[in-house]
Amino acid sequence: MDTVETLWADFKKPIANADDYVASLRGRGMNVFFMGERVAEPADHPVIRPSVNAMAETFRLASERPELGSVSSDIARQVVNRFLHVPVSPGELVAKHEMQRELGRRTGTCFQRCVGLDAIGTCHSVTFDIDAKNGTKYHERFLKFLRRAQAANVVIGGAMTDPKGDRSKAPHQQSDPDLFLRVVRRDDKGIYVSGAKMHQTGAVNSHWLIFMPTMRMTAADRDWSVVGAIRVDAPGLTYIIGRQTNDTRIVDGGAMDAGNAQFAGQESLIVFEDVFVPYDHVFMDGEWEYASSLVERFTTYHRSSYVCKTGLGDVLIGAAASAAEHNGVEAASHIKDKLVEMTHLNETIYSSCMAAAHQSKPVASGAYLNDEMLSNVAKHNVTRFPFEIARLAQDIAGGLIVTMPSEKDLQNNEVGPLIRKFLQGRDGVEVTDRMRILRLIENMTIGRNAVGYLTESLHGAGSPQAQRIQIARGMKIEDKKARARKLAGISQSAK
Amino acid sequence: MDTVETLWADFKKPIANADDYVASLRGRGMNVFFMGERVAEPADHPVIRPSVNAMAETFRLASERPELGSVSSDIARQVVNRFLHVPVSPGELVAKHEMQRELGRRTGTCFQRCVGLDAIGTCHSVTFDIDAKNGTKYHERFLKFLRRAQAANVVIGGAMTDPKGDRSKAPHQQSDPDLFLRVVRRDDKGIYVSGAKMHQTGAVNSHWLIFMPTMRMTAADRDWSVVGAIRVDAPGLTYIIGRQTNDTRIVDGGAMDAGNAQFAGQESLIVFEDVFVPYDHVFMDGEWEYASSLVERFTTYHRSSYVCKTGLGDVLIGAAASAAEHNGVEAASHIKDKLVEMTHLNETIYSSCMAAAHQSKPVASGAYLNDEMLSNVAKHNVTRFPFEIARLAQDIAGGLIVTMPSEKDLQNNEVGPLIRKFLQGRDGVEVTDRMRILRLIENMTIGRNAVGYLTESLHGAGSPQAQRIQIARGMKIEDKKARARKLAGISQSAK
Amino acid sequence: MDTVETLWADFKKPIANADDYVASLRGRGMNVFFMGERVAEPADHPVIRPSVNAMAETFRLASERPELGSVSSDIARQVVNRFLHVPVSPGELVAKHEMQRELGRRTGTCFQRCVGLDAIGTCHSVTFDIDAKNGTKYHERFLKFLRRAQAANVVIGGAMTDPKGDRSKAPHQQSDPDLFLRVVRRDDKGIYVSGAKMHQTGAVNSHWLIFMPTMRMTAADRDWSVVGAIRVDAPGLTYIIGRQTNDTRIVDGGAMDAGNAQFAGQESLIVFEDVFVPYDHVFMDGEWEYASSLVERFTTYHRSSYVCKTGLGDVLIGAAASAAEHNGVEAASHIKDKLVEMTHLNETIYSSCMAAAHQSKPVASGAYLNDEMLSNVAKHNVTRFPFEIARLAQDIAGGLIVTMPSEKDLQNNEVGPLIRKFLQGRDGVEVTDRMRILRLIENMTIGRNAVGYLTESLHGAGSPQAQRIQIARGMKIEDKKARARKLAGISQSAK
Amino acid sequence: MDTVETLWADFKKPIANADDYVASLRGRGMNVFFMGERVAEPADHPVIRPSVNAMAETFRLASERPELGSVSSDIARQVVNRFLHVPVSPGELVAKHEMQRELGRRTGTCFQRCVGLDAIGTCHSVTFDIDAKNGTKYHERFLKFLRRAQAANVVIGGAMTDPKGDRSKAPHQQSDPDLFLRVVRRDDKGIYVSGAKMHQTGAVNSHWLIFMPTMRMTAADRDWSVVGAIRVDAPGLTYIIGRQTNDTRIVDGGAMDAGNAQFAGQESLIVFEDVFVPYDHVFMDGEWEYASSLVERFTTYHRSSYVCKTGLGDVLIGAAASAAEHNGVEAASHIKDKLVEMTHLNETIYSSCMAAAHQSKPVASGAYLNDEMLSNVAKHNVTRFPFEIARLAQDIAGGLIVTMPSEKDLQNNEVGPLIRKFLQGRDGVEVTDRMRILRLIENMTIGRNAVGYLTESLHGAGSPQAQRIQIARGMKIEDKKARARKLAGISQSAK
Repeated sequence: MDTVETLWADFKKPIANADDYVASLRGRGMNVFFMGERVAEPADHPVIRPSVNAMAETFRLASERPELGSVSSDIARQVVNRFLHVPVSPGELVAKHEMQRELGRRTGTCFQRCVGLDAIGTCHSVTFDIDAKNGTKYHERFLKFLRRAQAANVVIGGAMTDPKGDRSKAPHQQSDPDLFLRVVRRDDKGIYVSGAKMHQTGAVNSHWLIFMPTMRMTAADRDWSVVGAIRVDAPGLTYIIGRQTNDTRIVDGGAMDAGNAQFAGQESLIVFEDVFVPYDHVFMDGEWEYASSLVERFTTYHRSSYVCKTGLGDVLIGAAASAAEHNGVEAASHIKDKLVEMTHLNETIYSSCMAAAHQSKPVASGAYLNDEMLSNVAKHNVTRFPFEIARLAQDIAGGLIVTMPSEKDLQNNEVGPLIRKFLQGRDGVEVTDRMRILRLIENMTIGRNAVGYLTESLHGAGSPQAQRIQIARGMKIEDKKARARKLAGISQSAK
Repeated sequence: MDTVETLWADFKKPIANADDYVASLRGRGMNVFFMGERVAEPADHPVIRPSVNAMAETFRLASERPELGSVSSDIARQVVNRFLHVPVSPGELVAKHEMQRELGRRTGTCFQRCVGLDAIGTCHSVTFDIDAKNGTKYHERFLKFLRRAQAANVVIGGAMTDPKGDRSKAPHQQSDPDLFLRVVRRDDKGIYVSGAKMHQTGAVNSHWLIFMPTMRMTAADRDWSVVGAIRVDAPGLTYIIGRQTNDTRIVDGGAMDAGNAQFAGQESLIVFEDVFVPYDHVFMDGEWEYASSLVERFTTYHRSSYVCKTGLGDVLIGAAASAAEHNGVEAASHIKDKLVEMTHLNETIYSSCMAAAHQSKPVASGAYLNDEMLSNVAKHNVTRFPFEIARLAQDIAGGLIVTMPSEKDLQNNEVGPLIRKFLQGRDGVEVTDRMRILRLIENMTIGRNAVGYLTESLHGAGSPQAQRIQIARGMKIEDKKARARKLAGISQSAK
Repeated sequence: MDTVETLWADFKKPIANADDYVASLRGRGMNVFFMGERVAEPADHPVIRPSVNAMAETFRLASERPELGSVSSDIARQVVNRFLHVPVSPGELVAKHEMQRELGRRTGTCFQRCVGLDAIGTCHSVTFDIDAKNGTKYHERFLKFLRRAQAANVVIGGAMTDPKGDRSKAPHQQSDPDLFLRVVRRDDKGIYVSGAKMHQTGAVNSHWLIFMPTMRMTAADRDWSVVGAIRVDAPGLTYIIGRQTNDTRIVDGGAMDAGNAQFAGQESLIVFEDVFVPYDHVFMDGEWEYASSLVERFTTYHRSSYVCKTGLGDVLIGAAASAAEHNGVEAASHIKDKLVEMTHLNETIYSSCMAAAHQSKPVASGAYLNDEMLSNVAKHNVTRFPFEIARLAQDIAGGLIVTMPSEKDLQNNEVGPLIRKFLQGRDGVEVTDRMRILRLIENMTIGRNAVGYLTESLHGAGSPQAQRIQIARGMKIEDKKARARKLAGISQSAK
Repeated sequence: MDTVETLWADFKKPIANADDYVASLRGRGMNVFFMGERVAEPADHPVIRPSVNAMAETFRLASERPELGSVSSDIARQVVNRFLHVPVSPGELVAKHEMQRELGRRTGTCFQRCVGLDAIGTCHSVTFDIDAKNGTKYHERFLKFLRRAQAANVVIGGAMTDPKGDRSKAPHQQSDPDLFLRVVRRDDKGIYVSGAKMHQTGAVNSHWLIFMPTMRMTAADRDWSVVGAIRVDAPGLTYIIGRQTNDTRIVDGGAMDAGNAQFAGQESLIVFEDVFVPYDHVFMDGEWEYASSLVERFTTYHRSSYVCKTGLGDVLIGAAASAAEHNGVEAASHIKDKLVEMTHLNETIYSSCMAAAHQSKPVASGAYLNDEMLSNVAKHNVTRFPFEIARLAQDIAGGLIVTMPSEKDLQNNEVGPLIRKFLQGRDGVEVTDRMRILRLIENMTIGRNAVGYLTESLHGAGSPQAQRIQIARGMKIEDKKARARKLAGISQSAK
């Protein structure tokens, strides 16, 4: 069993840049499975690698544009990667969202680091609150952990979504208690947890994971009310990477067929079997009353983090405009009108997220939290508008995005020349450039990165109905009714 | 002909509060017409009075909530009504928008002061720019004018929309040169202008008017490129107040039939016939090159000012919730879902406006201007969402909003008791309270204040297509295309 | 107390045409109230008359286009007005819908005769079913009644919507039993009914009324399970005509301000106090089990009857196109695009209604009933698309629709010439023509006929949620699930 | 060079059923390429086979439900497969659409036979019209061809979409004349054509192809104005099958990963190099004036044929309902509401298509053609609603549809049991059944059959803008304007 020191021993030398980051993922001997096979070195697996590249951009940005990708931290008393920082002002949340949009633009996909970032912000304040009430030492532990992570410049992932089993039952009522992650035993060094977390974004590309409860708990769910940090290569962890639409294109068709050969997202099912967590890395242990505020704060942060999708929107709008140009129709009024509509929807999302950052408020720990109503409104728009933007992109692109031959056909001596002859668009446009743009639109609307741009936009940080419940809670309906009654001329005592 | 001093002589004593304001409107002997008749004292005309009341709320708010309704001005070196202030920080634009929402909530209609406010902001920076280029003295003149207005605490209206005639022609090309407001002659004291301004919000309820060009001008349109300030009771002005849906309800049916008996908006056609403007009140005179930036800055300010409609939305959501309660269906899932949807749309508008304020930037004069893209996006949402909110309010309210008997029927001995018997909703709800809420919903969705909530939301500060043109200009499509090409794997030299 | 013969004595001479119809409405001495006053002769009341005119068009159409407005009836063995005919083939339902659209086009409003028409169709089959089960004679009575009505060529209205009181309670549970219309006593001649019906379309303009239960009944609601026919001038009836937006414009502003001076709709609250119905005119009397099928059949007919709104849509599209022409912008691509969108939505409604007619099926009596699913789908589209069509019409029209001076201003010597000068649009367009078209758009989108085009489209024949419930019932979800399971490769025994 | 007799020699024995059909596809030695490799026997290629299965269902339906899948033909004087029949009554078009919906339900994908069917209907009337004008013999030739095809019970595909090159240029203006299919030479036996057709649905699964011009032609485009029928295995033809999202899943992941393992669509690029067509199979040869009516008739037929997507909608609604059930949330009001919305949208599409069939009219040849306006409206709804239905299906299904492990993981001894443990839904639901339904939803919304359900719904039978142009043409705007003017009170001579 490892001590905390041992656990951090491998991270003495901080990760310096993107390449360094990729190197840091090798040789960890993790239990990773994809399509029924154990993957010895995920970072070198052709299907997984694009997700590593996307994560690596968070390091590249910090190098190339430090004002955006990094920030000075009072905790570490040094400049740290912004993904390891707890925002302590509206301006820092604003900068965070600008960074997220820019990374969306650079990768055209999910760069997978926001869950961990938002988990950090959440733990900062929740541990503070528990300690203030109970006199525990969670906050100090957490700060120590975070300071180490900042110094080492590692990637912290967040793990939240339990399998849940029968959704009408609480954790302790499930026939299988493992359907929510829980403490199975404890000793003087730490606790041992079992269970699973689903849909985990970029877990395999991380160094550490913070696990948290997924919903409000009751007193009987004490063992399930647990927060802690573990190394992703801790004994007892198994990762099963989910299939994504067109994930194997990069292998079977080549870079062109992939659409966006360099970047992709990653989700996995993580199974925990008796995983040890030393007490120094335990940040909640039975304080079930705090599970609901933990979840609310996390989702408030995370729903605004979906501003990243406006970066993907930028790429898709640009791709659609390029496709129109290749077809020679960029001046048609209906084409221009569709590009404007796409932009309008994209910027509406952006505005909601940014307003939620600008109007953030501090919580007791000093961390700033996005405005809750606006954050829910922002995410709710994300569950709608990208679908319409994608439809408009396909409208502009034309049917060829789903009937186009493979790059391998292009390489074939017999049919390659025929494709070059007949897929010619306007003069001066390379056939392969035309095809590449169409493949990118396919990738983002019905291909691998549509997973992140569409389906994840629906369900990440909570499905649409979850936002509606929060909006209902925050809508101050009694005040609104009083205003209406007054203007209607109803005496104020009446209901 | 009046000197500037004479013109300001009536405003020696600053307006102290809402009542004072209403009193200040009397005895001015303006040429005001409504429904074919000259209106001697508009503030006492029953159909016009609700619009005076709405304007008066801008004074009441300054008294009741000075932190929202007033602000310290560097120009006047005193606290002034926020409607007379040029915003010099993002925070001041944020506060302005909060004030606008609150006034929307208080009145449920257009309180008519934002055009003047946004005209002030615009003139501040445009006069500065002209002077910087040409060495003129417009900015100094404007500051002097504004300082006087702030000291007197008067209402300044803005007048922008010319009749335009044949829209395919420039001002100087029109068969009738008066179709755009213009300088018809000048002497050593000042200029004389003729023409008209349409759709002028609250003009009759103002003390001063700033007139401005409505669109970009050409060198041949020098005489039409004019900005100035006049008293609303200046000789040569005629006001024809437009009809609004259900405007005479307050007269023919009574307070209940009116729906919102206290508050309404006001628009008029203002005709200018040889109206004198002393040079001290002329802020542009022939500098046609600045007309387009004047228009763009004004619309950038003014499109975000439509945040006021979220205040109206608050009232309408509250009214719909009350109607549901009166019908005993407030717990039905489809009712709750509709209230959430209304709120979501309303807060989306709010978020766009607020983001445009938070992300404002200073221009050369030091004034802060809302973010242009976000302001256009905000207004574009205003051209859509209130219509859906209104539809949902009617859905919740039920058909009775358009089939309900008059208050006069209620007062009739024969049918009054029948109405009370049969319009009874859930136990404990007063029939008249139920009717009042339904009349308010009628008022805001198909009645007098639907003018402001719906049609004005479409066309005020520019019709939908105007925003689309601005969005197209600001969408940075070349950058977006470059991002797409890069991710698609197209070499950067290719187009 | 009147015998059936006496009741029909006034209708010996059939109504020959539209003028004859209007004449037939006079001298009936009905208890009609509007705005707190008894209306001696409704057909001559300036606010009510436009609704009489709209109804009269159903007679004019029968004269001018007999193939559309009339039909050969097997019941009367003569050609009858189509509004008095029970459809016995899909083709007759198709013709009915074409007639409804044409009348919508001719009047731009609700012509008020469809409720009665759909009541006739419903009673035909429900009386047949009751008799078949119980050996009663309702069907024969009904046919005799209908034959007389056809011969006399009278207008039959339908009365369905009870006040309902507390919506969570059945009729017999209400604290006031009159909140649903009911039999209060009976003698050997007939029954006596009391209660009220709300939102009654065109009742005052009718000759007879068929009253029906508004929802499913239980065994304890026997007294409320009653259907019968009465003369609209029967003793014990009181009519309170509801206020409509801008109803008094025709009086206070004149024909131009009215927008559509000739035509309007009409709704009233009808109060029944001990109203006698001879047994020959009673078509259901206690058979509560049939109330639900009566309601379902009526709504199935009536939801498709909302095809009339596509006629109003035609007018509004035409008005918007005219307004664009007057402004000189009819060739702008965004204008054309909006007209196409309006047409697309309008024709989508039409297609759903027509499909519901073409796919009608016979019920036991031989009457044809629209396809239930499609009829609900059609009406559900009517609750949405007219609102968007209206928004687009306002978008094209411009803000002038809500800021325009009154016709009375135009007649004023001082301001009339100013209005003519400044409201001039493109050359060659009469200012008054421009104003008239804008007033028509105001009338249909935020004025008197918006009542019928918008709010009635939401709530008439059942509010949106009512259609959703019916769609849920008819959606054959088990069959759909079985199809999905099969394609997913799930063995057929699995669920 | 083959004579017509030789060409038909292989089809002596009519295809009897689905199995027979599959067998008929083998041994044809066609030039088919997929992913850079020649495919010797497409019907046995695992990626292509699902598209063969879908086509085979058109034969199975004719066997199982002959009233739907077949029809008595006056041309062949026998019962024929309905896909080989020219509709001669509204009822036959109605039956055709019911058949298309049913095949959509059975396959969950594009069954690929409608282009050919609609080409047959189009050629029937266009050849008739040309002959009537010019005294040619195209119609007789066409009937002879069709009679043979009916007797042989073969599959006829349609080929319409040319590559088009620079879209601003006519065929004869292109730098490469092959960018539109054209006659390159002729001899006394027939003509020789070169060029290409894109996006060809099911071409490889057909026996014969009818090629047609893709747009209106000019007098200079005589050589490009050609219609003819060829065997799909004619010398000079090359097929390059396009990639579809997730096409290789069936190979790399297995049946479960495929989502719908049995059925899929198919599109290919067909290259024609000097392909011989005997005169008996030439149905237009230079009559460029008829190209536009050919295109209009074809699209009028084909846009209504998109009713098939309502069959796919049925499957997707069923799948979403099943997923909700598996998650134990089928009773939640928001889930039920989403299923209702999906159904409402699906049935709206259905109603537009059916109305277009019921209101079909005969053309000169006796063939019935769908109502043009309604057919365009129907297709335009198809370009929108399936996207919203898909979004709602994903909403109900949950994020697992894009993060789920492969079937191969399930088969792995280590991780298989973990997946079974943690993907357990409500009690009594097999984990694999739950996964299968989710894979089906993935398949239809972001997987292989999303190609047909979404992108093809946008672009098949013409992209959205093509429908808008047709709607603009058919909207009878002058009549609408006249109606508006009349109601507005404008004298009829005015414009």
